[in-house]
Amino acid sequence: MQTKHSAVGRDADFIDAAEKVTGRARYLDDLSFPGMLHGKILRSPYPHARIKGIDISRAASLAGVKAVITSADCPGIRFGLDNPDVYMLAVDKVRYAGDEVAAVAAVSEEAAEEALSLIDVEYEPLPAVYHPAEAMVPGAPLVHEDKPGNIAKIYEIVRGNVDEDFASCDCVFEEEFGTSLVQPCYLEPFGVIADWEPNGRLTIWTGIQSAFHARAEIAKALGIDPSSVTVKVPYIGGGFGGKIWIRNFHPIAAVLARKTGRPVKIVLSREEEFIASRARVAAGIKLKLGMMRDGTMVCKEAEIIADNGAYSWAAPKILLNMSMRTDCLYRFRSSRTVSRLVYTNHVPTSGFRGYGNAQMHFALESMVDICARKMGLDPVEVRLKNAVRSGDTTLHGWKLRSCGLSECIDKAAAAIKEGRLPGEEAGGRIRRGVGVACMTHVSGNRGGDNFDGSSAMVRFQEDGRLLVYSGESDMGQGARTVFAQIAAEALGIPLSDVIVMPVDTDVSPFGYGSYSSRVTTVGGKAVLLAARQVRDQLLKLAGKLMNESPDRLEIRDGVIFDRLDPGRRMTVAEACRAGIRTRQAAELTAYVTYDPPTEGTDSDYYGDYSSAYNYGAHGVEVEVDTETGQVRVLRVAAAHDVGFAINPKGVRGQISGGVAQGTGWALCENLVLKEGVLQNPSLSSYILMTIKDMPSIKPIIVETDDPVGPYGAKGVGEPTLIPVPPAIANAIEDAVGVRLRDLPFTPEKIFRAVNPQLKEAGK
Amino acid sequence: MQTKHSAVGRDADFIDAAEKVTGRARYLDDLSFPGMLHGKILRSPYPHARIKGIDISRAASLAGVKAVITSADCPGIRFGLDNPDVYMLAVDKVRYAGDEVAAVAAVSEEAAEEALSLIDVEYEPLPAVYHPAEAMVPGAPLVHEDKPGNIAKIYEIVRGNVDEDFASCDCVFEEEFGTSLVQPCYLEPFGVIADWEPNGRLTIWTGIQSAFHARAEIAKALGIDPSSVTVKVPYIGGGFGGKIWIRNFHPIAAVLARKTGRPVKIVLSREEEFIASRARVAAGIKLKLGMMRDGTMVCKEAEIIADNGAYSWAAPKILLNMSMRTDCLYRFRSSRTVSRLVYTNHVPTSGFRGYGNAQMHFALESMVDICARKMGLDPVEVRLKNAVRSGDTTLHGWKLRSCGLSECIDKAAAAIKEGRLPGEEAGGRIRRGVGVACMTHVSGNRGGDNFDGSSAMVRFQEDGRLLVYSGESDMGQGARTVFAQIAAEALGIPLSDVIVMPVDTDVSPFGYGSYSSRVTTVGGKAVLLAARQVRDQLLKLAGKLMNESPDRLEIRDGVIFDRLDPGRRMTVAEACRAGIRTRQAAELTAYVTYDPPTEGTDSDYYGDYSSAYNYGAHGVEVEVDTETGQVRVLRVAAAHDVGFAINPKGVRGQISGGVAQGTGWALCENLVLKEGVLQNPSLSSYILMTIKDMPSIKPIIVETDDPVGPYGAKGVGEPTLIPVPPAIANAIEDAVGVRLRDLPFTPEKIFRAVNPQLKEAGK
Repeated sequence: MQTKHSAVGRDADFIDAAEKVTGRARYLDDLSFPGMLHGKILRSPYPHARIKGIDISRAASLAGVKAVITSADCPGIRFGLDNPDVYMLAVDKVRYAGDEVAAVAAVSEEAAEEALSLIDVEYEPLPAVYHPAEAMVPGAPLVHEDKPGNIAKIYEIVRGNVDEDFASCDCVFEEEFGTSLVQPCYLEPFGVIADWEPNGRLTIWTGIQSAFHARAEIAKALGIDPSSVTVKVPYIGGGFGGKIWIRNFHPIAAVLARKTGRPVKIVLSREEEFIASRARVAAGIKLKLGMMRDGTMVCKEAEIIADNGAYSWAAPKILLNMSMRTDCLYRFRSSRTVSRLVYTNHVPTSGFRGYGNAQMHFALESMVDICARKMGLDPVEVRLKNAVRSGDTTLHGWKLRSCGLSECIDKAAAAIKEGRLPGEEAGGRIRRGVGVACMTHVSGNRGGDNFDGSSAMVRFQEDGRLLVYSGESDMGQGARTVFAQIAAEALGIPLSDVIVMPVDTDVSPFGYGSYSSRVTTVGGKAVLLAARQVRDQLLKLAGKLMNESPDRLEIRDGVIFDRLDPGRRMTVAEACRAGIRTRQAAELTAYVTYDPPTEGTDSDYYGDYSSAYNYGAHGVEVEVDTETGQVRVLRVAAAHDVGFAINPKGVRGQISGGVAQGTGWALCENLVLKEGVLQNPSLSSYILMTIKDMPSIKPIIVETDDPVGPYGAKGVGEPTLIPVPPAIANAIEDAVGVRLRDLPFTPEKIFRAVNPQLKEAGK
Repeated sequence: MQTKHSAVGRDADFIDAAEKVTGRARYLDDLSFPGMLHGKILRSPYPHARIKGIDISRAASLAGVKAVITSADCPGIRFGLDNPDVYMLAVDKVRYAGDEVAAVAAVSEEAAEEALSLIDVEYEPLPAVYHPAEAMVPGAPLVHEDKPGNIAKIYEIVRGNVDEDFASCDCVFEEEFGTSLVQPCYLEPFGVIADWEPNGRLTIWTGIQSAFHARAEIAKALGIDPSSVTVKVPYIGGGFGGKIWIRNFHPIAAVLARKTGRPVKIVLSREEEFIASRARVAAGIKLKLGMMRDGTMVCKEAEIIADNGAYSWAAPKILLNMSMRTDCLYRFRSSRTVSRLVYTNHVPTSGFRGYGNAQMHFALESMVDICARKMGLDPVEVRLKNAVRSGDTTLHGWKLRSCGLSECIDKAAAAIKEGRLPGEEAGGRIRRGVGVACMTHVSGNRGGDNFDGSSAMVRFQEDGRLLVYSGESDMGQGARTVFAQIAAEALGIPLSDVIVMPVDTDVSPFGYGSYSSRVTTVGGKAVLLAARQVRDQLLKLAGKLMNESPDRLEIRDGVIFDRLDPGRRMTVAEACRAGIRTRQAAELTAYVTYDPPTEGTDSDYYGDYSSAYNYGAHGVEVEVDTETGQVRVLRVAAAHDVGFAINPKGVRGQISGGVAQGTGWALCENLVLKEGVLQNPSLSSYILMTIKDMPSIKPIIVETDDPVGPYGAKGVGEPTLIPVPPAIANAIEDAVGVRLRDLPFTPEKIFRAVNPQLKEAGK
């Protein structure tokens, strides 16, 4: 591939890397405006309580305080996605310890903070529910009075004749798994600046993954038109799905700004990021797998009970992914999944890298190893035997236009086996093992409006440089660099001649946003099509200027030349200079709206609904200290079918990041809640992977040349995290013979599993 | 016309009127950024002097001062338009009292001001030239060493056989006229904020008429690519041609910002606006007119000597207009003009409403009255006899696709005669008279790159509102309102559903800028074409949604309906909601680059080079106090052929403004220079018209339905000022029998002219 292309398929430094590493890039908290106030939010200390009264008088009279608001100051609108169940400030009662009760705008953060302590709220604590299972029990306290049984969402998805298939299987296995509540822990806490323009429009600065969704939701929460809101996106310090959607603080800042007539900034503290953001949807998963003796996987049944927390946002959609996607990893004949999303008095749950799919992969990919071992088969062979392949239509109707799953399994398994350390050491205290796990995911998906497109605009400048506009945010993953590479490649101009503009809903073409690993595939495709259109315009212009048929012209390294007589040439800059704002009146601007050629799903969620599907496999080698229960991940071989790597360096970066984040989820991260109150709301008590904990990683890029994505590319954002926990679980079993079914795999759990006799003694 | 249209041809309040009158609109000086510094410029007190040394050490060490720069800190680039003759800070010598010598950036305006006083400059005064005539004398001091004879530009433009025609005339008259140096005196002093983005691009905020020209020129002055500069235009508090082009302070602010790493704001003081901005090009005009006894004007000869001041900017172009445009008012058979633009040690001259054309109109339209009176003819009849008409090709090749000159003369003359006061009163002390003068001007013109186009983008939002993007600034004349009306009309949506975006060179499509009275005609046409394109897209979408042929659909009041079955309907908002970010993947965005169908001029400036030509006539009634020489303009009947009045209220506003500004120029405004030093650099010593001085104005809108402009519209910005001084001069002669040939008509001049015996005594 390298010889064919000049800008894609080559390692590119992120175009904004210099700004970022020198500290010059401006994130939300670097922005400030004259007269700007600082907003702070008063949060409930109770997981469930009636608000009997709020007295803001002491707070309002504090020097420097410009506004104190409660729900009485807000439009009485419940907003949200599938379940609009949240007011921007609590009405009548609070539903989790962290719920928004009141807000303050003041001239300094200190004054705002002090004002919070002067707001007197009278609470009447209510009985609460902390476990989905207990919340579903008839008579349990209701989180929302209009949600009987605390049910936020139920799915029952059946394909084929499951009961018949199970009856025909040689072996049927059943297991239960549990996943934990974790936070994305992006480096930059989420925040907003809101300001009402003199013309009555609202400007919102926020480092959000989807500016256009944000615009619509902020408008909805405020009861105004979307076109009355402008969302501007500064640099984003990581998102991982946690910044796809708005939070309550977005409309709260707008209300404070309207009340004070001044810009208001709210940036969450790290503590608020823990207690009052949206955690990964934790789920209890019962799995039943029917297999034939030769290792053929026939059918699958799953029952999921997931913790919605106090408010739904994307959790229903996440539950859907959890209920379906892993069925498209293997050639199952049938499946049935019943899943329930249950309100509790916990922190709300929502999107986080993998978006539900990661949870079920932990269950299924652990299950495959469990079953293979029980049947005396090689888990890698079982995976290869059942893996879906290019050309397949999966159980849920995905059309696999490209699929490198088998190659990924082969390569990851081979790489992790090669050079592995001896299984045992130091008198048996240190045990080592390897494990493999697979994954599948989407590159985009048709959402509620049956749309999965993106738009792009490109515009040549009179000096030959190209401006690229997209509505898809770069949250640090390198989207802008990929867009620049695609445009540079399509146009034959140097990467440095492409300027990718920041996202601004008044300017950027509509983009759905950076999630579902869709940005390269869908946003990049829109950029490619726009660049090709502007190339046609440029060649037509150059043909006129050079008195030559455009068909004979080609562009390379910023030079337009006659293919048959390469001495006849002019630079792109010369053509632009001669064509823009001259008699030629060349537009040299293209605007493209692209929607991938997929059909979406029917009302039963069956159908081909992503422009491309990602596959991958990780092999990991772990080391378990049997005396402490401590696990170290030594090596990871991460093979990913990315279709085509537009920026291989960026793909390797995604792999490193996904492995780090997946390992943290597997081994150490966990929100510890006690009666609904978070016990570890800080980075010193909530443990993240550090550079010292990182394994040696071997990224393996598998290219399958997807027919839909730009230059054959597919997404890679989420996939790299998904197989990590099950691969580690499988490796731990390989090392010490114990199977861990609940995340995270803490030293304590491993120690107790390895020493069951001590577990008894501990009672 | 009124019944045919819903949004154009109707009085519309300016869409930003509420913001402006309530003080909420944000002008440049309302903007502030964190860490922003204030810049000030040290200016030469000498009209001509060698700089022997600059010591910045005392200034640089003053508390709060962050940078002090001289030419040594600037790229050694001479920039400008036809004559690139200026450095951003003086190199070696200063050329006028006001020339930029050094600049300071400090934490406050006060500190910057104080620092200026601490910069020690050693000057060696040089002999200077203050009059173009003396500057051309061999051996005169040179303003620029590379400009021999101090000549900035010479034109000789000949059409037909002038000498032969003069020989055949019944009467030949010769007169001399002089126009004065005046400043536009817009309400908002010009200014800039410059800031270097972390990615190395320069952002410039400035209330400029042409953002894209500004971008190119700032880049040129700094030696960088245009695409490395972004120009953002906040509200503009008037421009009148004085804010078309950048000033030295623009790149100076950029250099200060680069040196300090902080945003730097420079806003001129009112004094700087007087001493160091660009004045109207003052000219001495010798005019020779050949006529037949019946009043036929046959031929014309002109000799112009114009004051360029110390630096050229647009003055050469202005001299060209001065040399040509009035020849297209009447059916001359031939003409010859020789014009010279001469460097002096005066403040530089450049564009101001009328752009040269106004100066020559003063001369010619005075001349017509002088000649008619001498021949015993009615000046109005002479004008009507000679007036060009629709379908004419003028002496310089203008193709008059629409021309309402005769109608304007008729209506203005009739209106001013109707109800006129008695010619004499109060024992002969107060004398009254009426006068008429005509005008022609362009609506756009093909500039240096043989381009006169504009681009527009329109984009529907999901709630049915429309965003309109144009690169043409609204300097207060109501361009945004006109664009909104045009888009609303073309789309059948309410005016309130159109949002016109601010000008930003990173966002707005290319526009040449607001000058040459081109915005409605050319910018508005681009908006119209883009709106029509998006209308086609919308109807295609609605046809799909309504299962109907788009041809049968129409849009009115925001509703799309079936022409043959009007009950079948959906709102524009419903169509947008159903089409944007849905399976329909409707673009609903149009981008149009428009260049009017004119051919431009040949190398001898002959040809059709404006999309439309404006004509008009003013009748004025004045009252002269023969004891004081004071003139009062009592009434003005101002008839203007605007093609079609998109916003009649806006046209009437332009007429009021043009009359006020033209009357000020005629009667009181004047820069009084003594040895190159301005004697009246303030609004208390430089006298402007006030509301108390305003005549009663009768605006007469003449519509000729121009075939090129949008809905038949032509420009009206500059035309309304142009006929005012000659009409007043003609009315003064009518009142008191004296002919004034030099602007302004001060009481002193009138008194002396009315009392010639006292003039002698005064000697």
